[in-house]
Amino acid sequence: MTKAANEEAVVQAAPSHFRYAPRYAPGSLLTVEHLSVEDVARILRATTNLEQMDAAERGAVLADRTIALLFYESSTRTRTSFELAAKSLGATTTLVSDKSSSIEKGESLKDTGLTLRALGAEAIVLRHPSSGAPFLLAQTTGLPVLNAGDGMHQHPTQALLDLRTMLSRLPGLGIDAAIHAKTLDGITVVITGDIRHSRVARSNAMLLPRLGARVILCGPPELLPEEALGMGNVEIERDFDRALSQANVAMMLRIQKERLAGTTLDIAEYIARYQLSPERYRAAARPGTVVMHPGPIIRGLEITGEMADAAESAIEEQVSHGLAVRRAVLARALGAQL
Amino acid sequence: MTKAANEEAVVQAAPSHFRYAPRYAPGSLLTVEHLSVEDVARILRATTNLEQMDAAERGAVLADRTIALLFYESSTRTRTSFELAAKSLGATTTLVSDKSSSIEKGESLKDTGLTLRALGAEAIVLRHPSSGAPFLLAQTTGLPVLNAGDGMHQHPTQALLDLRTMLSRLPGLGIDAAIHAKTLDGITVVITGDIRHSRVARSNAMLLPRLGARVILCGPPELLPEEALGMGNVEIERDFDRALSQANVAMMLRIQKERLAGTTLDIAEYIARYQLSPERYRAAARPGTVVMHPGPIIRGLEITGEMADAAESAIEEQVSHGLAVRRAVLARALGAQL
Amino acid sequence: MTKAANEEAVVQAAPSHFRYAPRYAPGSLLTVEHLSVEDVARILRATTNLEQMDAAERGAVLADRTIALLFYESSTRTRTSFELAAKSLGATTTLVSDKSSSIEKGESLKDTGLTLRALGAEAIVLRHPSSGAPFLLAQTTGLPVLNAGDGMHQHPTQALLDLRTMLSRLPGLGIDAAIHAKTLDGITVVITGDIRHSRVARSNAMLLPRLGARVILCGPPELLPEEALGMGNVEIERDFDRALSQANVAMMLRIQKERLAGTTLDIAEYIARYQLSPERYRAAARPGTVVMHPGPIIRGLEITGEMADAAESAIEEQVSHGLAVRRAVLARALGAQL
Repeated sequence: MTKAANEEAVVQAAPSHFRYAPRYAPGSLLTVEHLSVEDVARILRATTNLEQMDAAERGAVLADRTIALLFYESSTRTRTSFELAAKSLGATTTLVSDKSSSIEKGESLKDTGLTLRALGAEAIVLRHPSSGAPFLLAQTTGLPVLNAGDGMHQHPTQALLDLRTMLSRLPGLGIDAAIHAKTLDGITVVITGDIRHSRVARSNAMLLPRLGARVILCGPPELLPEEALGMGNVEIERDFDRALSQANVAMMLRIQKERLAGTTLDIAEYIARYQLSPERYRAAARPGTVVMHPGPIIRGLEITGEMADAAESAIEEQVSHGLAVRRAVLARALGAQL
Repeated sequence: MTKAANEEAVVQAAPSHFRYAPRYAPGSLLTVEHLSVEDVARILRATTNLEQMDAAERGAVLADRTIALLFYESSTRTRTSFELAAKSLGATTTLVSDKSSSIEKGESLKDTGLTLRALGAEAIVLRHPSSGAPFLLAQTTGLPVLNAGDGMHQHPTQALLDLRTMLSRLPGLGIDAAIHAKTLDGITVVITGDIRHSRVARSNAMLLPRLGARVILCGPPELLPEEALGMGNVEIERDFDRALSQANVAMMLRIQKERLAGTTLDIAEYIARYQLSPERYRAAARPGTVVMHPGPIIRGLEITGEMADAAESAIEEQVSHGLAVRRAVLARALGAQL
Repeated sequence: MTKAANEEAVVQAAPSHFRYAPRYAPGSLLTVEHLSVEDVARILRATTNLEQMDAAERGAVLADRTIALLFYESSTRTRTSFELAAKSLGATTTLVSDKSSSIEKGESLKDTGLTLRALGAEAIVLRHPSSGAPFLLAQTTGLPVLNAGDGMHQHPTQALLDLRTMLSRLPGLGIDAAIHAKTLDGITVVITGDIRHSRVARSNAMLLPRLGARVILCGPPELLPEEALGMGNVEIERDFDRALSQANVAMMLRIQKERLAGTTLDIAEYIARYQLSPERYRAAARPGTVVMHPGPIIRGLEITGEMADAAESAIEEQVSHGLAVRRAVLARALGAQL
């Protein structure tokens, strides 16, 4: 079986809607589907615990532990976030990226993983363009693997940081809110843009309804096919203003211009119909609707600069919650007692 | 306003010949123009203080602090120098370069800066091909920003390290010499080469005369236009031998061959007229003239290998003073008490 | 003399078959030819000593020391191995690679080395595509230089880690076995594949016979010319099965498809004649023959995936021994007392 076929097989076999799979090392975070609601609650509690420690105490949590960052795709925020999270816990990190490594020489993911394990890595943070790659890496190395984004599949720490951002912003909740199947009852999250290619949308669409949220996906058919309903308990609303009028949270997704090329929409039309601007917000959204975006944003395309910088925007807070949540999942991966 | 237009506007608004601008976080180092003579004195004193500490004491100065290195241009010496300076003070660093990050995806400088701030960066060291970029970053993040070279504009730590190198080498001075408007009285610094494209020349030409030095710029009109006189209190002398005969310091600049392509000079003619060799040094320079170069040097073009390696050359010392000075400006950026 | 000519001259002058050359800093590791048998014994003892320390004790060995990693070629395992080895000893590291540095701007190796020295580097780990480059760097900087692979010339830490792997696997030996001219008496090591371009083969072929091993080189004439006999006390056997039947250790080398292009062999024929598979192993090898490969492997070319993953394979252990051995040579380079 070729490597590509192998990875394809892994994706096909990627477990859906079930609890923790024993063939992956405990502490792995491959998909939000593997997280029970109680797992999510534990991770968020650990996040707050770690945030409240002073720097010295935090720096002892993973002292003398080694974490490898394996990035087959470029990334600023995710890579830097995991790296700083690991360092703040006292761990030693090493970065292997496709720009400076024998990844270029075509070594298989499996062998790169085995090498990192033999070098003492106790967990691997992986970003990879192929959906399912983290499953393959976790199976072949037996190490805890943290999925930092795989193809169009999953980005579980993004869903966790988005959840924590919502908790911190929504009235009556807060980062210490109890996590259960009704935590987000009555909350509507509208995710707008290129749903089709978005692991962020997929991860959120799988996690949020399990906590009681209503999730509405919004976008043109080319970027949001009907099949997206298969993600789970989600709805589709093509009219952005109508969706926005119901939103407690408006999560905007990045639009890559190349992606529009394959559609009947030109950029001007996309902007007219789907861009979030202060004018549209005032006209269509309820007061207090929280604006989110996983970044990197394109000011003037899916969101205006003014909207991104407004008080209603939680975009920077998302980044901070990302650092905090990643500390917790790294500590969890290495079995640290908190 | 587009991003490009935005940055252009910043450059236009970049303050000239005035003291510290309150809209930038204290500890920012954007241009030597923002440094008072007393600021320079303080930085050099801090440099020596840090140099005299033992490694353990030094490693506590910025313990548990986080510094981001944001490099949009390749660099060995400047990036490594800032990185090792920060690490030697105990800081955690993270490097974001255009080779391995979403910079590639076209995220704006502003948003990259806001992301780094949200990730806990307390200061940003920025190298950027656009003049004025560090001003924009400092304004939009509110963080202390250290300019590690912006386009053809400024390279303030280079001017500081060059100053410290001169003090250490020139008779009657020394790294502890009192810094005031007459410190360099009677000292002539000749800067030779591609002045037009050199942020090193510009930074030195603005700093040194304020300490009493006479600065002579030397080079062919294509690389040293008459407009260079606008840099401040400087002179132009096109004959290298005549300039050299007056120099206490001969600072050579790197010549990029591509740049000569636009001129009436070919490389052989450039070498004949402007290369610093031991023969020319013995024939034209006064004994003891200090030879400097910001690096990377091209042996056999602007300077011969023999000259670069001679006892009169302070090129390696410049690198060491760079590490030392950068410790001081990093400690200053984060408000460390020394 | 041009830079290229300079490096060529260094290669010509590279010492053969003699003991430690006083013009290189003690602690340099440029070629296995510089290592006496007693040096090898000392390094292996230090390796075990460091391995047995607890993490905190080990982290004090090179505390406050600085090591530069200078990589002109891509590498995952070697770069990461040296980096993690250095960090585990408490050293500060900085990575300079051709992907993110002024190496791109054509600065000479000499000047990059002098810059790193001036920045406080106390040793330099160098990987370079030109044979002999580490000699040049060691001569010009006076620093201990560790050769992490130079062209087709040497990869001394690979030979040391391969030796330690063999000791740990071969009956009656072990990592603590006494090292002398007869340690490997009766042991036959077959090295198969692209000997011509392999610094791994060359380093092993020079080291192992000095410890008593018989070394057989195997491969087609295009990849293993008769001149290879000049490496020293080695034999050539073109028939892989016949070679394998005598092996205690079967060391497979990576085949780059481009290299086959210049030969009369196509890939299918190479595989038929030289690939190591479980079938061939069972048919031709003696039970217990240890399978090794320096990595990165190409599953399905020089070795099958099944063979690489089999119990007879020591490939992952090689990586772990690499980390261990590199700790020892780094400690040696900086004169740490163990």
